[in-house]
Amino acid sequence: MLKRKGLLLVVSGPSGAGKGTICKELLKQNDQIKLSVSATTRKPRNGEVDGVNYFFLEKEKFQSMIKNGEFLEYAQIYDNFYGTPKAAIIECLENGQDVILEIEMQGARQIKEVYPEGVFIFVLPPSLNELKNRIVGRGTETEEEIAKRFSCAFEEINQIVNYDYFVVNEDVSKSSKEVESIILSEKNKVSRYKNNIIAKFKEEL
Amino acid sequence: MLKRKGLLLVVSGPSGAGKGTICKELLKQNDQIKLSVSATTRKPRNGEVDGVNYFFLEKEKFQSMIKNGEFLEYAQIYDNFYGTPKAAIIECLENGQDVILEIEMQGARQIKEVYPEGVFIFVLPPSLNELKNRIVGRGTETEEEIAKRFSCAFEEINQIVNYDYFVVNEDVSKSSKEVESIILSEKNKVSRYKNNIIAKFKEEL
Repeated sequence: MLKRKGLLLVVSGPSGAGKGTICKELLKQNDQIKLSVSATTRKPRNGEVDGVNYFFLEKEKFQSMIKNGEFLEYAQIYDNFYGTPKAAIIECLENGQDVILEIEMQGARQIKEVYPEGVFIFVLPPSLNELKNRIVGRGTETEEEIAKRFSCAFEEINQIVNYDYFVVNEDVSKSSKEVESIILSEKNKVSRYKNNIIAKFKEEL
Repeated sequence: MLKRKGLLLVVSGPSGAGKGTICKELLKQNDQIKLSVSATTRKPRNGEVDGVNYFFLEKEKFQSMIKNGEFLEYAQIYDNFYGTPKAAIIECLENGQDVILEIEMQGARQIKEVYPEGVFIFVLPPSLNELKNRIVGRGTETEEEIAKRFSCAFEEINQIVNYDYFVVNEDVSKSSKEVESIILSEKNKVSRYKNNIIAKFKEEL
């Protein structure tokens, strides 16, 4: 049998495109895929569990982890840090387990620099108008923020060229199945496994 | 809706790896995929139907098609020519229909030169020994031919580096599903559709 490393799936795209719902559906249908848990220095909110929603860290700990290169990516938002710890993910991948990471576009860019063998998936809204409707529908943003988001959306979509795959999020179940196909097909990619394949057959000679 | 061109799937690999059985299973499960029919100058055998098993052509016609560049690939085997006519395939692809082409490795190489956007799939036997057993089992080759095939097999497997995907043919139904995933995921590849995507969203601005 061919030993195959796990895949790191990086799911990103414009805010409101629906990356969260796709990931949730994918995880529901595929319990062998692991969701990466981010670390943060912000305080837990009501009901949030350490190690499930986030790893809640002290600022000193977070900063020393930055210094030691222990994050795949991190960002500071106002007073708080958010980041993706490297060690747990790498361990899963080495054990052949696939890991999914839902992240905004700047984080995805950072990850691509340090882990280009990741599978980068861009979630597209069916249209810009639909994207706007979704952001309005969430009711969490002010009118000004919505206008700003919308005007950035096209520019964000242009960044699709840095991704491997896109998924048009019209139907969450269809989108999740498309991601499943991406995972399966990546496990059949020659560029990932050619050395293992050739070595395996060489043993028989 | 995003307009997506059909895919040309080129299924190749060492003789005896099972490309034929995988293609048959895939076509049985997916009647929207079209099988490419080869042209030949050899005479039809009992029960062979023109346009189904082969397009049976006169040698003069075949040679004028070669001259006019009407083949994706062709080869002469002893006195007969075999080739893949381009026009019918290109028409299908333009109409968004996927076409599958089962072909030996030299033909696949020729196709890659003229149609690099094809999806090149290499069918691997589970092991070299298994490959030998299958060729022996077919009972169509002499002992000498079998020995020759086997000694070439490892060299052939090294050519996998020129392919996009591999499928280890242990279980035909599993292999066929892997090819299905490859087809689906290729339709979500940014490199294929980025210009269409950006143009589509630009219309909305």
